[in-house]
Amino acid sequence: MALIVSDTPAAMAGVFTRNRVRAAPVRLCAERLASGVPARAILVNSGCANACTGERGLSDAKRSAEMAAAALGLSPAEVWVCSTGTIGRHLPMDLLEAGIPKAAAALSREGGEDAAGAIMTTDTRPKTASAVFNAGGAKITIAGMAKGAGMIAPNMATMLAFLTTDAAISREALSVCLAKGVESSFNAITVDGDQSTNDTLLFMANGAAGNPLVERGGGAFWRIFRDAARDVMKRLALMIVADGEGATRLVSVTVKGARSRADARKAAMSAANSLLVKTSWFGADPNWGRLAAAVGYSGAEFDPELMDIFYDGLQAVKNGMSAGLPEAAVREVILKPQFAVTIDLHRGNGAFTAHTCDCSEEYVRINASYMT
Amino acid sequence: MALIVSDTPAAMAGVFTRNRVRAAPVRLCAERLASGVPARAILVNSGCANACTGERGLSDAKRSAEMAAAALGLSPAEVWVCSTGTIGRHLPMDLLEAGIPKAAAALSREGGEDAAGAIMTTDTRPKTASAVFNAGGAKITIAGMAKGAGMIAPNMATMLAFLTTDAAISREALSVCLAKGVESSFNAITVDGDQSTNDTLLFMANGAAGNPLVERGGGAFWRIFRDAARDVMKRLALMIVADGEGATRLVSVTVKGARSRADARKAAMSAANSLLVKTSWFGADPNWGRLAAAVGYSGAEFDPELMDIFYDGLQAVKNGMSAGLPEAAVREVILKPQFAVTIDLHRGNGAFTAHTCDCSEEYVRINASYMT
Repeated sequence: MALIVSDTPAAMAGVFTRNRVRAAPVRLCAERLASGVPARAILVNSGCANACTGERGLSDAKRSAEMAAAALGLSPAEVWVCSTGTIGRHLPMDLLEAGIPKAAAALSREGGEDAAGAIMTTDTRPKTASAVFNAGGAKITIAGMAKGAGMIAPNMATMLAFLTTDAAISREALSVCLAKGVESSFNAITVDGDQSTNDTLLFMANGAAGNPLVERGGGAFWRIFRDAARDVMKRLALMIVADGEGATRLVSVTVKGARSRADARKAAMSAANSLLVKTSWFGADPNWGRLAAAVGYSGAEFDPELMDIFYDGLQAVKNGMSAGLPEAAVREVILKPQFAVTIDLHRGNGAFTAHTCDCSEEYVRINASYMT
Repeated sequence: MALIVSDTPAAMAGVFTRNRVRAAPVRLCAERLASGVPARAILVNSGCANACTGERGLSDAKRSAEMAAAALGLSPAEVWVCSTGTIGRHLPMDLLEAGIPKAAAALSREGGEDAAGAIMTTDTRPKTASAVFNAGGAKITIAGMAKGAGMIAPNMATMLAFLTTDAAISREALSVCLAKGVESSFNAITVDGDQSTNDTLLFMANGAAGNPLVERGGGAFWRIFRDAARDVMKRLALMIVADGEGATRLVSVTVKGARSRADARKAAMSAANSLLVKTSWFGADPNWGRLAAAVGYSGAEFDPELMDIFYDGLQAVKNGMSAGLPEAAVREVILKPQFAVTIDLHRGNGAFTAHTCDCSEEYVRINASYMT
């Protein structure tokens, strides 16, 4: 269990899973977001997703917010809750009741790493990132933590990620910043193509840095802030992929020359999600045909006879056919822990980069026995 | 290599992959289909897909049709060619040149099983099915063979399947029959969600049975024929899933009560393709939450709080929450080599059944080293 607390009321922005099956804590967070009440705390538990738990699930989520509010001397409406873990089980309220006061008592300014560790499920390491910069005459900090590992797919903040900042920035300006940053970070990664019921990304800003309040997006301060926030989000997102269940390689798949950015995204995500592509990387198999096939069924519009494919800049495919690059050269790239695939469709100016990992036998082992 | 030959000119119907990257033999078959020239033979090779091979690939495909035509005393336009195997390599024309006359010399009425064996790639067993029935005053036979194993996903005849019949039936009537049958058979199965560049299903009818020619769909004969053909297609499709790479379980996923059949299909295929669902089955993990999540991100419209889920008739989920069924009972069903999952959305009358398999470590092992 982790507890994130702001000393003063903070603006909160959030994005949530687009899965039609939304966990109780996601529904509660969406209510909080709509209410506009400034936030003070986020309570996070791992192990139980509190999803598919009906009305009892919702009242358990509310009750845990009340318990945290009581322990912290806050109003329940100021406390947000997030859960991750197995779907279909009820929150162990007795454990929460015992644990929440302990978590509240253990709060400290140095507890960030401990909190990042507390929210892990099948993650093998905690994930944190931060940025410090000067803007608006103040020193601003943005700090983030995330958890990932499985059920990682685009279409929303993937799993749980929390950003905090001491910048003075309105809910509106923060929201736009979040929406922009998500596109190229959390919504550009995939581990297994499965979209969770609990995906939540929250961004909390309490103004302690003392800069003049940034009311809306677009100004000089906001642009600096947005870039820094996007950078933190992207680093967290890449950490999630690099620590994907069973992953041994971190791969970026860039599609460029697409008719549109949307087409580039379709093609890149299709390749990044293909099980045949991901298993071939695990085996260091120089099988670019699987990339071509995955782009082919992505729905993106292109002429296969114009397609070029590169591995870390080495051209393996030219005009839709083998460019004659020795398989050993491709294999050498794929054997690296991190490499880039670039697919040029020569059809327009649309580009998108997806971040993914390989799929190993370990992925299957982990997921064949998650619940039990 | 396999050779399927009709003693007399035959009507041919076909459906092909919808992948934008289409192998050379698929392009050649599509040309043949458009030409309307009656067919005499199908030449099939496994090991090389002849996909992403450019103009040389197309001329290699044409050249192999010419070689088969020469060996059989036919016109090249009467010979169709299909390939399956690794993408991006050119056909080994010397091997084809040596092998085609041998295959032609080995033709026999009893060679069906040998042919089914010859087209296998990672299949562990040949797949054949047939139906014999009386219609139009004649004894009609429909015989089919298929190969599958990997790159198995819907949206077209999956990989290669060939049906032959001695019925006298026009190309038009045969085509409608094929289109109807594909919907609930080859387009309702998935192994890994990867759609091939070579998927081809051909149906050849030479009229040797002597029934009065069936000109178009709709009549009594046609309905009997359609049902028999659908049955053969479905049996072949299920054999492909049961022999999916690394598969240990054959699972049908039925979604009913959907707003439409299209929605039911979306939801069923989403669950049937989910890597988390498939790995949980491999581990006999009673994790119905993953089914709920996969239906949730399928795009189908439904109210999660009305969803029921059954395993072989045992209700695990009622109104979107656990129905209290002991996990051991669910596990007992999942441990069977074949079982049925039924998801009722209580939203309308749309229904669809998808057929899939579990995903084991063996799948990853096979696909990590396919090419090399």
